[in-house]
Amino acid sequence: MTDNKPFIFECEIEVRDYELDAEGIVNNANYLHYLEHTRHLFCKSEGFSFADMRKQGIDPVLAKVTISYHTPLVSGDVMTSRLNMRRVGPRFIFNQWIINSKGQSVVKAEVTVVALVNGKLSRGDELAAPFTKYLD
Amino acid sequence: MTDNKPFIFECEIEVRDYELDAEGIVNNANYLHYLEHTRHLFCKSEGFSFADMRKQGIDPVLAKVTISYHTPLVSGDVMTSRLNMRRVGPRFIFNQWIINSKGQSVVKAEVTVVALVNGKLSRGDELAAPFTKYLD
Amino acid sequence: MTDNKPFIFECEIEVRDYELDAEGIVNNANYLHYLEHTRHLFCKSEGFSFADMRKQGIDPVLAKVTISYHTPLVSGDVMTSRLNMRRVGPRFIFNQWIINSKGQSVVKAEVTVVALVNGKLSRGDELAAPFTKYLD
Amino acid sequence: MTDNKPFIFECEIEVRDYELDAEGIVNNANYLHYLEHTRHLFCKSEGFSFADMRKQGIDPVLAKVTISYHTPLVSGDVMTSRLNMRRVGPRFIFNQWIINSKGQSVVKAEVTVVALVNGKLSRGDELAAPFTKYLD
Repeated sequence: MTDNKPFIFECEIEVRDYELDAEGIVNNANYLHYLEHTRHLFCKSEGFSFADMRKQGIDPVLAKVTISYHTPLVSGDVMTSRLNMRRVGPRFIFNQWIINSKGQSVVKAEVTVVALVNGKLSRGDELAAPFTKYLD
Repeated sequence: MTDNKPFIFECEIEVRDYELDAEGIVNNANYLHYLEHTRHLFCKSEGFSFADMRKQGIDPVLAKVTISYHTPLVSGDVMTSRLNMRRVGPRFIFNQWIINSKGQSVVKAEVTVVALVNGKLSRGDELAAPFTKYLD
Repeated sequence: MTDNKPFIFECEIEVRDYELDAEGIVNNANYLHYLEHTRHLFCKSEGFSFADMRKQGIDPVLAKVTISYHTPLVSGDVMTSRLNMRRVGPRFIFNQWIINSKGQSVVKAEVTVVALVNGKLSRGDELAAPFTKYLD
Repeated sequence: MTDNKPFIFECEIEVRDYELDAEGIVNNANYLHYLEHTRHLFCKSEGFSFADMRKQGIDPVLAKVTISYHTPLVSGDVMTSRLNMRRVGPRFIFNQWIINSKGQSVVKAEVTVVALVNGKLSRGDELAAPFTKYLD
């Protein structure tokens, strides 16, 4: 994670006990759910929800995720989930960080998204439009 | 479960470890997944998959589930999942039974489904058509 | 649901987009997650969380769920989830109701729980202790 | 993925319809479930299941996942999931590849695992023991 841009969005997400696995910690796949939920809330807060995108024929698709696990979330935790984004050609790269209620790093992730427009891989301009202030 | 009709379909489903919860047993909600997966495999085996239904504008919707939990599934279990069905007017009632690899009863469930056709509640004839041999 | 007792707990739960299925509505099994999450938050709010129970060797186990589906939850919904409880011998019966942000009924459920104490089915007194004010 | 070691394990996993999301494709987080399920089946096939590990106080923990998404899985797909492994000091690195029934690449992933032994980060020797023939 060499990205030093400041975070542009943060939200709180509550661990639900059914997300724990047999070790009593949140199962590794659920962190991808939290990261996705954060991106969806961010897009909605910018006035361009995934439902809006779908209506315009825009379909953001995950191309790659790199996630490092630092401290597991446990029952009762409320996490703070932060992101920023940048664009590299057709790719939108989200830098995401989740910390627990004690301020410990839970996971760091870099999530690369591309956009299909009407089913075809796009150069990204349609998806970029509502987010230009964050993309340089 | 007063339904004494013989079962008309059975399949095997493998427990996946991420379905266990903090007690080391399969989380209660996953049984609804297994029951649904069984109904979908049954419909597919009858040549009328959920994808087929969707293409014809038929959308089966759950109206009610009654599920009794007998023995929890644990890591490594392979369950046998059985069903039969009957029709009561617009309602399709699936009688479902899951047993574990030792032959113990895991859950019994009665699942009531109705059909939307092009978004409107139907009398059920479209959904019934491929299954008439099982419905009296 | 013939239970007319007033609700004793309510919480808000946010739909997360990954809980939607291919029909664009929340998958049926997720409602069991929401119902469970509500019971866990209720117990925690009463000062007797599931983690506390486990430390005392008490393990609440689902015996039966009856759930009726009225209106599906969709992307962006924030539900209100309510419950009350009563005791019938060793069984604790939760009457649960989820409504959407428009005030429409989403699901109604009756959830029957029994308690294992140190691995053996109990008469329920250990689990009842912190909740006596709600049980008559 | 610069790892050219041959795969040492493969299994088939069936897509279950509830794993699809609102786009009608398998939700991105479920691939981590498939990858985990594959590792668990592999360990079990080697006679050293996760349940066995737990009994010996060994707890494998994810440190990092890098996953590239190539082709989405859809309803009815049966995937083939393959892995090999290598060791770098305390870290066990699984190279995993999932292909669909048409032979198309679905995801490639590199999964780094470390082992806790009795709750403390270990140098990896306990976890390595049953797998020495695969580790050089």
